[in-house]
Amino acid sequence: MRYTHNEGRKYKLRWVISITNLQTGVTVWLTGLSGSGKTTITTALAGRLGQCRYPVEVLDGDVIRRNLSKDLGFSKEDRMENIRRIGFVAELLTRNGVIVLVSAISPYEEARFQVRQMIGSFIEVYVNAPLAVCEKRDVKGLYKRVRSGEIQHFTGIDDPYESPIEPEVECRTDEESVDNSVLKIWDVLADRGHVERCTSLVQVESAAN
Amino acid sequence: MRYTHNEGRKYKLRWVISITNLQTGVTVWLTGLSGSGKTTITTALAGRLGQCRYPVEVLDGDVIRRNLSKDLGFSKEDRMENIRRIGFVAELLTRNGVIVLVSAISPYEEARFQVRQMIGSFIEVYVNAPLAVCEKRDVKGLYKRVRSGEIQHFTGIDDPYESPIEPEVECRTDEESVDNSVLKIWDVLADRGHVERCTSLVQVESAAN
Repeated sequence: MRYTHNEGRKYKLRWVISITNLQTGVTVWLTGLSGSGKTTITTALAGRLGQCRYPVEVLDGDVIRRNLSKDLGFSKEDRMENIRRIGFVAELLTRNGVIVLVSAISPYEEARFQVRQMIGSFIEVYVNAPLAVCEKRDVKGLYKRVRSGEIQHFTGIDDPYESPIEPEVECRTDEESVDNSVLKIWDVLADRGHVERCTSLVQVESAAN
Repeated sequence: MRYTHNEGRKYKLRWVISITNLQTGVTVWLTGLSGSGKTTITTALAGRLGQCRYPVEVLDGDVIRRNLSKDLGFSKEDRMENIRRIGFVAELLTRNGVIVLVSAISPYEEARFQVRQMIGSFIEVYVNAPLAVCEKRDVKGLYKRVRSGEIQHFTGIDDPYESPIEPEVECRTDEESVDNSVLKIWDVLADRGHVERCTSLVQVESAAN
């Protein structure tokens, strides 16, 4: 095939695109009680990844409910279906080289196992804080509404939360800083070759510049 | 930051990744009656794109219904919601550099306009064949079931199909070959810099080798 001057640019572009198949995607799945710190860690991690120009997408449980699962409630079946839908989208992005951060309570081991199997390149992060700590934080004011009887089927109170059996990472957010949690996840991402290794967040930041 | 021999590979990888921001994604949205040829064109186009190593994903209306919209029926409201969900996923992939091929009847102009606005990088393809031709093909045997009264709310029969007003491409599948349809879409993709220009499918094929 012949290339004109104009087409040369496109040729170069294609060459670059085919190299990028080297970049493999991954889903980092953060599970934990409401108020455990999933969103905080996700936001911090997404910020670092973005600074370092890694392709990153956040799939937040609440946002996905608004966009893909308006019809679903909070029964076991509906929660499982919601997780499957998030998993479906995460898989599509993961196989296209994106680092996908899923932040969703995802209380059922069976559902988390299903999405792990579906996605393959998968890191489960157990965002763990005692219920009393989560309730004390009560960022969204939900625990208050649960205790007043306004909300029912609330995970950890009158709905089950099945703790991960063998998560790749456990973040004890009542004992460690957000930066520490982010670094622990970053280490696993680095072990698997998705990001460069950094031994401190200063290095993460300097790598971004 | 210092790099060991091992880390050099990752550094190189990151450099490549940041270059690929040059590759911009796009959603090619194929709309048309059941039996008009959407799936046939989509499959052929996806094959060509894949051969040329472009990142491509197919979002088929039926597959999406199974995975994201089991709850939805075929009322106007449900069809609109289904299209919004496909649009949500297509947008996520598009902004990550993927060429997304959506194949869905998508009968309502309003819904197609909404996803066009949402996605931005968007090419609407009107897959157009007269109803009589679609019915004669009846690949899935659906028209037969409609005529026998087994299926209702069927687009083009007892449910509306609003033809695109200004589609970027119109494929008259009763008059042109699949290869011709694919080339017409390829031309628009090339005009916008998403693929290399090819003047014939032989060139598309040779570019893949």
